[in-house]
Amino acid sequence: KHFSISVIAGDGIGPEVMREGLKVVEAAEKLHGGVRFSYESYGWGCDYYLKNGMMMPKDGLDQIRDSDVILFGAVGAPEVPDHVSVWELILPIRRTFQQYVNLRPVKLLKGLESPLRHKTHDDLDFLVVRENTEGEYSNIGGRLHEGTPYELAIQNNVFTKFGTKRILEYAYTLANKKQKKNMTIATKSNAINFAMPFWDEIAKEIAGHHPEIETNIYHIDALAAYFISKPEEFDIVVGSNLFGDILTDLGAAIVGGLGLAPSGNINPDFHYPSMFEPIHGSAPDIAGKGIANPIGQIWSVAMMMDHLGLTVLSELIIQSIEEVLQEGLVRTPDLGGYSSTVEVGEAIVHKFKHL
Amino acid sequence: KHFSISVIAGDGIGPEVMREGLKVVEAAEKLHGGVRFSYESYGWGCDYYLKNGMMMPKDGLDQIRDSDVILFGAVGAPEVPDHVSVWELILPIRRTFQQYVNLRPVKLLKGLESPLRHKTHDDLDFLVVRENTEGEYSNIGGRLHEGTPYELAIQNNVFTKFGTKRILEYAYTLANKKQKKNMTIATKSNAINFAMPFWDEIAKEIAGHHPEIETNIYHIDALAAYFISKPEEFDIVVGSNLFGDILTDLGAAIVGGLGLAPSGNINPDFHYPSMFEPIHGSAPDIAGKGIANPIGQIWSVAMMMDHLGLTVLSELIIQSIEEVLQEGLVRTPDLGGYSSTVEVGEAIVHKFKHL
Ligand SMILES: CC(C)[C@H](C(=O)O)[C@@H](O)C(=O)O
Ligand SMILES: CC(C)[C@H](C(=O)O)[C@@H](O)C(=O)O
Repeated sequence: KHFSISVIAGDGIGPEVMREGLKVVEAAEKLHGGVRFSYESYGWGCDYYLKNGMMMPKDGLDQIRDSDVILFGAVGAPEVPDHVSVWELILPIRRTFQQYVNLRPVKLLKGLESPLRHKTHDDLDFLVVRENTEGEYSNIGGRLHEGTPYELAIQNNVFTKFGTKRILEYAYTLANKKQKKNMTIATKSNAINFAMPFWDEIAKEIAGHHPEIETNIYHIDALAAYFISKPEEFDIVVGSNLFGDILTDLGAAIVGGLGLAPSGNINPDFHYPSMFEPIHGSAPDIAGKGIANPIGQIWSVAMMMDHLGLTVLSELIIQSIEEVLQEGLVRTPDLGGYSSTVEVGEAIVHKFKHL
Repeated sequence: KHFSISVIAGDGIGPEVMREGLKVVEAAEKLHGGVRFSYESYGWGCDYYLKNGMMMPKDGLDQIRDSDVILFGAVGAPEVPDHVSVWELILPIRRTFQQYVNLRPVKLLKGLESPLRHKTHDDLDFLVVRENTEGEYSNIGGRLHEGTPYELAIQNNVFTKFGTKRILEYAYTLANKKQKKNMTIATKSNAINFAMPFWDEIAKEIAGHHPEIETNIYHIDALAAYFISKPEEFDIVVGSNLFGDILTDLGAAIVGGLGLAPSGNINPDFHYPSMFEPIHGSAPDIAGKGIANPIGQIWSVAMMMDHLGLTVLSELIIQSIEEVLQEGLVRTPDLGGYSSTVEVGEAIVHKFKHL
């Protein structure tokens, strides 16, 4: 089997962690005789923008459209407004390729301790399914009375039945596939009184088709608090674009930090390439120092393998990460260690080769 | 001095915790010879709605407009859609009376342990200033193509310069008044690319007038994670209506739970009554059992006293709560205890009278 990967390392620590991720891809090829990966790297991002006035070439999306998957690092630099860097690179990829599922595990890896005093590995193991193409990130809005005291800005939340249904259906399908019994749905219908009751209506309809699964709908404020007080209740959590975004950074925090957390931007029907990326940003404050944690990127490689049907390789990568963490010798500073990005990456690759 | 209080106990556990809150008000009067409170109770809420088809009488707001303050319990019942109960009672009060500041302390009380393993009392003591009249809770939106597969719902986020400026200015004024050096501002300008860059612009302008204070602007997703990883960094956190809502439930969770947290809906210029309420909801699941934690309500009474200039009484109430918690004998089940709402309320009143 041969798979083509489009690699977009991006900005800041992106290229640093990507280098380690690609070492794992190469090692996988050596380990598993029957699988080949080829990859093409694209130097898009904020540097490209500062030279060319755009984040990627006009035909950028076409250049990567036919690859099997996309591996992404991070985007953003202090010199480029965030809404430019994001809306001209990562969001067009998510949308054009209908990567409507943003899948993010919240799982306390072996060898790590949760910052939550009373929670153990058994309590912290669930999946967040985030809508990834519409909702609060609508790109629709504007301003009025600019420059006056009466100036105002409006931005639309846009929820379609099409978009809402497909993400909720995906969540239930996933629950059944993983034999999970509990579905948690985020809302805020009490206050966001047009968009969120619509979301709830569709949620209740789809929940009704799945009596085998226990469904709870919680307001996002309460749900954020439950991530602290009763994370053990969750199997699958599903939320809108913004709610899923907030919950997954919070999820990362309760299992050890943003440096560890992976994500998949998934087009479930395989009509377009899916994209895998750590959930952390480009972290300009530590870029260039060689101390970024590569685990989020490497775990994203594992999610990519799983998506490609290479389940065993995927599991072996996660096992390698866990063994390095359990030994506790090689860790980046965010985990209290003194090792570099490269040292952590190579320790994981070494494990992976010798498991 | 004489103060008039409009009391709206509301639904579920609202009346149960309110009863204890009012005992503290009465005790305050006895303790402090120079101050008198009178109060009027209004039986508005979901029961009222089920009888009368509205959450409060048509002239409800006029009935309470001339009181000095409003003391609120909780709103919401399973039989009434949340967006009805909320948009016909609590939100009209917040808006009509220009209670544009929602002030919420995140403070680990003495006698309690944070669920965050490595955080102590020194780490967990800051204030969240939440915009309380506009933004994501706009009441503006609707649906199209109802009943078809093409149905969609839109809700506008509406941010005015007027509304954004006054909340940020309040936050900086408060920082100076409390001699705090650090301001944290929530945004999501990378993704919510019309409304949030507008918010940031105004934030940067006002931050520019306050070089004495260090300002950090963080995306809401990262900020939620920082509530777990570095809460000690915060003095004042300011955010939009929705972001402030999420952050304060999260804030409550890291200092011991939703049952404890108080809030003030404040009209800083005293043109209208301000309103004080616990941040928890009506909790239908435990209503009627007599086990709700009254501390959120009682602490809200303390905030009310502070707002009325009765600083010493306010501090004594908080001290009474802390002493009861430190003794550890009388606690409701949410804090691992076996006591009733009434027992906790009376223990606090007893302390308060004998401090
Ligand atoms: C009841 C609800 C609308 C309310 C809000 O979101 O403002 C509540 O969660 C709060 O925080 O006071
Ligand atoms: C960069 C930003 C737009 C992005 C998002 O909010 O989707 C990031 O926070 C993420 O979660 O992938």
